[in-house]
Amino acid sequence: MVQTIRIIGSGRVGSALAARLRERGRGPTEGDAELVLLCVPDRAIAEVAQSLEPGPWIAHTSGATPLAALHPHERRFGLHPLQTFTRARGPEQLDGAYAAVTAEADEARELGFWLARELELQPFALSDSERVLCHPGAVAASHFLVPLHRSAADLAEAAGAPPEALVPLMRRVIENDFELTGPIERGDWETVEAHLNVIRERRPELEPLYRSLADATKALVAS
Amino acid sequence: MVQTIRIIGSGRVGSALAARLRERGRGPTEGDAELVLLCVPDRAIAEVAQSLEPGPWIAHTSGATPLAALHPHERRFGLHPLQTFTRARGPEQLDGAYAAVTAEADEARELGFWLARELELQPFALSDSERVLCHPGAVAASHFLVPLHRSAADLAEAAGAPPEALVPLMRRVIENDFELTGPIERGDWETVEAHLNVIRERRPELEPLYRSLADATKALVAS
Repeated sequence: MVQTIRIIGSGRVGSALAARLRERGRGPTEGDAELVLLCVPDRAIAEVAQSLEPGPWIAHTSGATPLAALHPHERRFGLHPLQTFTRARGPEQLDGAYAAVTAEADEARELGFWLARELELQPFALSDSERVLCHPGAVAASHFLVPLHRSAADLAEAAGAPPEALVPLMRRVIENDFELTGPIERGDWETVEAHLNVIRERRPELEPLYRSLADATKALVAS
Repeated sequence: MVQTIRIIGSGRVGSALAARLRERGRGPTEGDAELVLLCVPDRAIAEVAQSLEPGPWIAHTSGATPLAALHPHERRFGLHPLQTFTRARGPEQLDGAYAAVTAEADEARELGFWLARELELQPFALSDSERVLCHPGAVAASHFLVPLHRSAADLAEAAGAPPEALVPLMRRVIENDFELTGPIERGDWETVEAHLNVIRERRPELEPLYRSLADATKALVAS
């Protein structure tokens, strides 16, 4: 739909998208292009957008930023890949990830969907007003895995167990489509209380998180 | 090290272990055996152990139960697979999972390690007194993924996004060895506050969990 794409920003997201475009023989273009993709920090989007001459399509890849940040451009959309990126991987990090496409007009949405598919992302439409609700969902699903794993690994290590033992378990929970097993699913509150007691004694700093997750799990079982 | 193994209990764990023994041509044996493996609910272990004539080796697969529950048997150990099991899968669920082997004597530990390897589990030694600390680690890593995912999926669905969009993201966080990215890693508290505001307004029941996980993530970044 467009022949020339320019990427501004060479952070983790910009680098992965540029590598995918190169792989597909689609650039990215330096200088003038039909589509300019802003892969800059959220707080820099409005400033960079204002510095660009209106004319080409413009898009950003932020999950949290409204389209209004692309002012004064009107041919605009958002394409937010729901993925976590690392410099240690290449364009294959995009494979199979979803992308939220936000647009105010059909033509913009079609271009966003086209671009997502060119990048080998799976697009879905997300309204501008709902981005603010979808983004914490993505943050909860991904970033909050980090303290969850760290807390669990702390407990395993304190017990003398190898923390890597937790990883096949976490993978399988996802592969099993989040089927709940274990003491809370069995209504075994005695075991849950024993957990909280030993955590309070040996790793008190982990108690609030453990308790709130146990409560959320109980609420799921009860629902 | 033993030729005959009997499994008592045909729940999710017992079925997977029995299927693996069958696959390896090792039984399981009905009736008398050199090793009896109890795959019964935690609260039934002591009763079943007491009902068995002392003589053969005896083991349980519980993460939370001390070896004393196997009284009056003295040739005993614990083998706890750190995995979540479903009836929808077979013995391959054991592949690559770790197993905590708890024993009071070298001979028992060696037998536990041998059995774990026969089952294609990766054994590590865990002292009886530390099981109570390791088990909540395993519960946190696995079962607490369920409310985490459910809360994130609720937010995505409320925003009109497909909840399956979160799954490639969660898998990649694990594959990237829990490298933290996103607003909290960037110190972008404005975005975190915006998340909490929209959650309070649209899904207030999720606020306590979101807040405690955001706080735990902040503490990780600060550490």
